[in-house]
Amino acid sequence: MHKNELMEQRESKDYLSQLTLDCVILGFNEGELKVLLLRWKETQEWSLPGGPILQSESIDAAAYRILKERTGLNDIFLKQFHTFGEQPRYNLAEIQEKLKHLIDPEIWYKRAVTIGYYALVDYAKVSPQPDELTVECKWWDIKEIPQLLFDHNHIIQLALQALQIEINLQPIGYNLLPEKFTMPELQRLYETILDRKLDPRNFYKKIISLGILTRLKERRKGVSHKAPYLYKFDKAAYEAKLKEGGLSFL
Amino acid sequence: MHKNELMEQRESKDYLSQLTLDCVILGFNEGELKVLLLRWKETQEWSLPGGPILQSESIDAAAYRILKERTGLNDIFLKQFHTFGEQPRYNLAEIQEKLKHLIDPEIWYKRAVTIGYYALVDYAKVSPQPDELTVECKWWDIKEIPQLLFDHNHIIQLALQALQIEINLQPIGYNLLPEKFTMPELQRLYETILDRKLDPRNFYKKIISLGILTRLKERRKGVSHKAPYLYKFDKAAYEAKLKEGGLSFL
Repeated sequence: MHKNELMEQRESKDYLSQLTLDCVILGFNEGELKVLLLRWKETQEWSLPGGPILQSESIDAAAYRILKERTGLNDIFLKQFHTFGEQPRYNLAEIQEKLKHLIDPEIWYKRAVTIGYYALVDYAKVSPQPDELTVECKWWDIKEIPQLLFDHNHIIQLALQALQIEINLQPIGYNLLPEKFTMPELQRLYETILDRKLDPRNFYKKIISLGILTRLKERRKGVSHKAPYLYKFDKAAYEAKLKEGGLSFL
Repeated sequence: MHKNELMEQRESKDYLSQLTLDCVILGFNEGELKVLLLRWKETQEWSLPGGPILQSESIDAAAYRILKERTGLNDIFLKQFHTFGEQPRYNLAEIQEKLKHLIDPEIWYKRAVTIGYYALVDYAKVSPQPDELTVECKWWDIKEIPQLLFDHNHIIQLALQALQIEINLQPIGYNLLPEKFTMPELQRLYETILDRKLDPRNFYKKIISLGILTRLKERRKGVSHKAPYLYKFDKAAYEAKLKEGGLSFL
């Protein structure tokens, strides 16, 4: 086992010790909410992207740095949602055993607190990149996530709860959808995040009444039935609505 | 300067280094929202209660420990709301200078990240207690807070923002009001948190329709006009309402 990035970090004074961050990177594709996961080298073990915080950088800057490394994107919507500091957070002995071919079991912190961030990205724009210790970085459907390393299933669960609460307070649609989308696509996004069905007629009426959408002259091509109109967010109107107290309409 | 608690903590391996927590302890009295602040010995400098986290305790347990020490209360509603990790968070040289009669300027961490918690307490039940480095612990009206040490004004501001968002999701009234209260007192609590006036007739109609209040036979004594009825929360109904998606009614 040669000395790798993680082992060097642990010995370095350039990083905060016992404090890390983890990123729940969410995308939306074909009506499904997706999360970006990493597979560790020579294992079938998956985890969230994350890492340490430099002494010289803010925690937000550390999160942007990690997101850039994993997705190639600079301009990402990112929000801190919860800090995980249970003691213990997970079974360390199990982690040490599972990853001992990659990481000297001695170098794990006996305890680490992690700051959870969620990021909303345009699925089509992301080029998933594994890091030095992982071999694969890919999108998983949020409903099909396997048992993850550490407490990462729990972290995802709390990210989704935060997203449900913040759906009316943050520009979630704007960040998760491509520039042009249909009304059924927008409704499907809300249904996926809220995890319940919405009445299409009601949804249409209410979202139109907010005045945050612009209907384009184009229609979605290549669908079998009557082609639905495409919409765009009116960014200025959207942000004004958010500022004046949210988009609560469901 | 004799060696004090803070100086001993910094040299001890029993605590997480560079990670602390700060508590915004809120109470409600005579129609005003109050926050508990500490005055540092031989100064006119105020700050939030806070402290370090033991290696052996969860971050929630550390927050409960600090709250118990400052308020005497065990059974407190407590919620983590944000972690503050800007770099820098505040002007360290200024803190070192202001508190040098109490703390050796050498022992401050060059950087500390802090986890913010807010606590909602029944004002009448609290016995504010200063700690070893402070001489006074008292309630301040939220609208009259002085310039505080560290970034504590900013932390309070974000606690109040979190409270506004969570007013419909957490048992805020239940925790901030005494057991029995009048309808104007409850309305005043909502107005104070939301920082806007509400129409009394509308407020009454909507909150009654939630079915979470029990009107008592007693009336408030000692008021000059027509004595208003007292109410109590129906705790089971209140919690059921929160679970099914909040108390959104304003």
